[in-house]
Amino acid sequence: MKVVVSIGGSVLVPDPGSARVAEHADVVETLVSEGCHVGAVVGGGGVARDYIGAARELDANEIELDQLGIDVTRLNARLLIAALSEESVTAPAHNYEEASEALHRGNICVMGGVAPAQTTDAVGAALAEYVDADLLIYATSVSGVYSDDPNETDGATKYEKLTANELVDVIAGLEMNAGASAPVDLLAAKIIERSGMRTIVLDGTDPERIARAVRRGEHEGTDVIP
Amino acid sequence: MKVVVSIGGSVLVPDPGSARVAEHADVVETLVSEGCHVGAVVGGGGVARDYIGAARELDANEIELDQLGIDVTRLNARLLIAALSEESVTAPAHNYEEASEALHRGNICVMGGVAPAQTTDAVGAALAEYVDADLLIYATSVSGVYSDDPNETDGATKYEKLTANELVDVIAGLEMNAGASAPVDLLAAKIIERSGMRTIVLDGTDPERIARAVRRGEHEGTDVIP
Amino acid sequence: MKVVVSIGGSVLVPDPGSARVAEHADVVETLVSEGCHVGAVVGGGGVARDYIGAARELDANEIELDQLGIDVTRLNARLLIAALSEESVTAPAHNYEEASEALHRGNICVMGGVAPAQTTDAVGAALAEYVDADLLIYATSVSGVYSDDPNETDGATKYEKLTANELVDVIAGLEMNAGASAPVDLLAAKIIERSGMRTIVLDGTDPERIARAVRRGEHEGTDVIP
Amino acid sequence: MKVVVSIGGSVLVPDPGSARVAEHADVVETLVSEGCHVGAVVGGGGVARDYIGAARELDANEIELDQLGIDVTRLNARLLIAALSEESVTAPAHNYEEASEALHRGNICVMGGVAPAQTTDAVGAALAEYVDADLLIYATSVSGVYSDDPNETDGATKYEKLTANELVDVIAGLEMNAGASAPVDLLAAKIIERSGMRTIVLDGTDPERIARAVRRGEHEGTDVIP
Amino acid sequence: MKVVVSIGGSVLVPDPGSARVAEHADVVETLVSEGCHVGAVVGGGGVARDYIGAARELDANEIELDQLGIDVTRLNARLLIAALSEESVTAPAHNYEEASEALHRGNICVMGGVAPAQTTDAVGAALAEYVDADLLIYATSVSGVYSDDPNETDGATKYEKLTANELVDVIAGLEMNAGASAPVDLLAAKIIERSGMRTIVLDGTDPERIARAVRRGEHEGTDVIP
Amino acid sequence: MKVVVSIGGSVLVPDPGSARVAEHADVVETLVSEGCHVGAVVGGGGVARDYIGAARELDANEIELDQLGIDVTRLNARLLIAALSEESVTAPAHNYEEASEALHRGNICVMGGVAPAQTTDAVGAALAEYVDADLLIYATSVSGVYSDDPNETDGATKYEKLTANELVDVIAGLEMNAGASAPVDLLAAKIIERSGMRTIVLDGTDPERIARAVRRGEHEGTDVIP
Repeated sequence: MKVVVSIGGSVLVPDPGSARVAEHADVVETLVSEGCHVGAVVGGGGVARDYIGAARELDANEIELDQLGIDVTRLNARLLIAALSEESVTAPAHNYEEASEALHRGNICVMGGVAPAQTTDAVGAALAEYVDADLLIYATSVSGVYSDDPNETDGATKYEKLTANELVDVIAGLEMNAGASAPVDLLAAKIIERSGMRTIVLDGTDPERIARAVRRGEHEGTDVIP
Repeated sequence: MKVVVSIGGSVLVPDPGSARVAEHADVVETLVSEGCHVGAVVGGGGVARDYIGAARELDANEIELDQLGIDVTRLNARLLIAALSEESVTAPAHNYEEASEALHRGNICVMGGVAPAQTTDAVGAALAEYVDADLLIYATSVSGVYSDDPNETDGATKYEKLTANELVDVIAGLEMNAGASAPVDLLAAKIIERSGMRTIVLDGTDPERIARAVRRGEHEGTDVIP
Repeated sequence: MKVVVSIGGSVLVPDPGSARVAEHADVVETLVSEGCHVGAVVGGGGVARDYIGAARELDANEIELDQLGIDVTRLNARLLIAALSEESVTAPAHNYEEASEALHRGNICVMGGVAPAQTTDAVGAALAEYVDADLLIYATSVSGVYSDDPNETDGATKYEKLTANELVDVIAGLEMNAGASAPVDLLAAKIIERSGMRTIVLDGTDPERIARAVRRGEHEGTDVIP
Repeated sequence: MKVVVSIGGSVLVPDPGSARVAEHADVVETLVSEGCHVGAVVGGGGVARDYIGAARELDANEIELDQLGIDVTRLNARLLIAALSEESVTAPAHNYEEASEALHRGNICVMGGVAPAQTTDAVGAALAEYVDADLLIYATSVSGVYSDDPNETDGATKYEKLTANELVDVIAGLEMNAGASAPVDLLAAKIIERSGMRTIVLDGTDPERIARAVRRGEHEGTDVIP
Repeated sequence: MKVVVSIGGSVLVPDPGSARVAEHADVVETLVSEGCHVGAVVGGGGVARDYIGAARELDANEIELDQLGIDVTRLNARLLIAALSEESVTAPAHNYEEASEALHRGNICVMGGVAPAQTTDAVGAALAEYVDADLLIYATSVSGVYSDDPNETDGATKYEKLTANELVDVIAGLEMNAGASAPVDLLAAKIIERSGMRTIVLDGTDPERIARAVRRGEHEGTDVIP
Repeated sequence: MKVVVSIGGSVLVPDPGSARVAEHADVVETLVSEGCHVGAVVGGGGVARDYIGAARELDANEIELDQLGIDVTRLNARLLIAALSEESVTAPAHNYEEASEALHRGNICVMGGVAPAQTTDAVGAALAEYVDADLLIYATSVSGVYSDDPNETDGATKYEKLTANELVDVIAGLEMNAGASAPVDLLAAKIIERSGMRTIVLDGTDPERIARAVRRGEHEGTDVIP
């Protein structure tokens, strides 16, 4: 089984410590020991927000902010790599080809962001498409895709299942709503739609949930069915 | 004045010949001689469609198709460069930083695509944002932004003016409509919206129209007002 | 057995379609499944001629034309890669070292051009020399090495066998003759001569001929004996 | 006058905000407007310590820790660049040659770390040597070179002047003393010694002090006389 | 005036010392101060021969030998750069585009070899063609193009003038003759022929001869007339 | 067992010939055939000294000299690679990550210098630390670590054993002494100290000594015990 896991930055590194990173690395290595091929894409989280906030005050433009964000995602990717066995991976992949070659050699591949104006959500979907993954998992800080941002709207309901087309519509709706934040961005949703990839959005603050979703498809998040 | 011109591949190279390329190069150089700083972003056009079509038949995935497309855009960028004076530019820029440095040195910068899952429409908007351009022009094969694809729908009406928010809504609507093609894609529209950049979408098959739009703001396309 | 196959651009992509590419990829993969190590070097063909023609009209110099040509060869290399199994190869090699490392890992390696003023004919010979190949095959649009260009001269006779020294002499003679085109260029012939590599020049429009030549040395082209 | 300023990470970014960065950028730009050529080398500070601490708990080795640190210094370099005028610099230099070329073009150059097992202190000295700077300034969190770590030892006395040889001896002594931290590391001191470069170590928490030291040689730190 | 000078390795570095390098650098800088744009391409000489000889004994193949040779040419290029003013150039150009951009910025460009199976003779001609030079000078260890290798054949006569076509014929003849060595190789001669570039082959052991040839066209070597 | 061998340039290439290189390559391959993973780091030796001497006369600064030196170390690395089986390694690694990936693939890795102001002694120690080697061997031109430079001081005594702390002290002492040269530099000694790596300094002019030290820990040099 080939799995791409997109781990949000604040899910991987909620604070400067190493505990959560170690747990995520354990899950990845356990899956590999069970025969999975695993690609991980890592987001920027709080450190990215800090740098982007500071740079915005300094009048950096959005592309410069994106580049700061990419640098932080790669820093987080290195931290995950530090927690993985040295046999598996030594440095973040710069692009889909390097990532794919690492998987072919039986290694774990770890990536951060790739280009401005593209979130690591989209990188995760693109990597999954590029390596023809069987499953794409978004390990986010919310527990699935909701009708509204659950942190903003009381009656937001979580979707248990969505088709890829429905996912695009829900995300497009959320993005129109200025206050709301979506667990996966629109570009990612569109890549999922075009590739017809099975996708699960779940709460990654307990990394063990990722392992269960991979092994048995069991999870309390949202299933996106091609 | 700093201008970024995004030239569609089939607008720049409608057929294998050199005539249209020469005309676009003339316009760019004339604008430069009049004191403009000009960045050009070039699309893939028919050659990209040929390669992508062949690769799709060979079961390449979408990211691989995107990479073929990027290669063709860079080939077209080299062709435009061949038509420009050697003093101005010698090779396509690989990223926004190289492009920006070329502009700072007083050169013309020419780019093709940058990363998978991102059209040259979006690259044009991102470059314009990165270099803080005064004007972004899309030289496309249609004469502006329409309510529907004018090649598909008879009563499609052209917008003379749109706010950036309206542009996003119109494009989002067009993209929902499977048969329709939009002159600018949604990611580009969103970058235009967030950056508040003045943008003109016009028919680029007569390159002289670009010069008039830059010089006097005169054109028969669509004005996107921040 | 280690084989390098140099496939002419118009042999691989005689028109924008995918059929011929698929056939060449099948031959390469069949040979690999039979235990061969295969390196492929791909030419530019008609698309290269189109771009080079346009750029020449735009007064590009020969080195710029060479660079356009290199870009097209790499595009064709990607197309061949798209037709190969993803396990085998993900991107064109940039140089002989990358190509050699891919072969050592048991992958197929695919290259286009490497540097200006050097055809893919010469790259094929150099790759064969670098990886110490047992056999170098030129899959061209003519059926071997002739005493004259068979498309120009009626009585041109095909050589069944040539020593490497004779090959150099024949090619040098053809290159002196302005109207004639040779199936392999002089630099390639000289590399073949210095390396003493067994080489076959054959008609590659039916890719199956390559397989037969590799398996049993059977072919109707020209044998170059060290 | 050509100046290289090495700015400690916690001096440039004492906390996630932008205020201090803006002040340092102002000083750099003012100096440039007064005719100076300025190269800046930026350290890692608290964010580097956080990542390195986490990675050490994850059993990363020292070279991996160094690479995390280098990534953070480059992130901080981007932040300083965000605060500088876009005309001056668009991206951190990767090596001394890129940095030197930027200075020759009249730009500001900004660097972070270059290679493992080498602090940004040493990079600052090496850049100063490479570009043949007239002055090297270390903007640190202490007010000069002391006989002992002033945060650890009460009676530590600050040196007003040191020869480069004395600097090497003092730093070597401090490095032997496990608890102490030196404002400049031994490799940097040795580069200063071999190049005979005038160097000032001062408290950079008020960036204006850098400007005064450059303009009139006035400062309350330590002067290292060749 | 734009000049490319191709300096043989044993002409630039006849022995490990620096004297000859300094003289060549002086000539280059003097020409620049007189308004010339100068590109220099440097060969490998004795050090290249030593390394290639040793590697051949170790059974390296010809492409590996070429790569050793390229490395030495770049080392010699660095040595010439060390002798030039730091304002002019900081590192060898990796390809024609970097070289051309350096010239456009008013710098001197210095290159070594570019790719295997291509001498620095050919790189010199290709650079001259790429930057559209007015004059190409080969500073070699013999005093021009001879009918035979003057070190091997007593009655060898020097050509005062040759057309580019004649040059190709003479060089082709020399290369057929196993014992002879030609001052310029066949690929270089063919590039000169196709580009129609004025070329002078002269004895570069006295660098001042280069200056005279550039300034007034006076020299005792061989003139190749387009 | 994982071993890193740092081979001094004049130990590997005492003169332009190939004999010594072949012997070192034999030892490396024999160790590999016995199950060792071997990384080799190669110094610059006499050729580096020649180039650095010439460049110093030309007023190059120390960083430029370091870069010349790095180039020569990479040239020597290529020579060692030429003597190794092509299956094992095709090109020098540019950094620790490439080197580590080569080792993980079961290849030999070969490096030269990495960055200015850092000897290959330090690169050897850093590589050993990065790949978590069991043993680091310095194959130098002296037979171990002495209390003084044995070529300068008659009564210099060789240490049979040193702790890593003692090594740092001895080397620091030698470096203070202007005339003396140490077999390993201070930065290397500090990396050895921080990593707690077992290290042997021995006379590498007979490469067989390296094999004996690896196999049975037998040698007449200096043992550095963590």
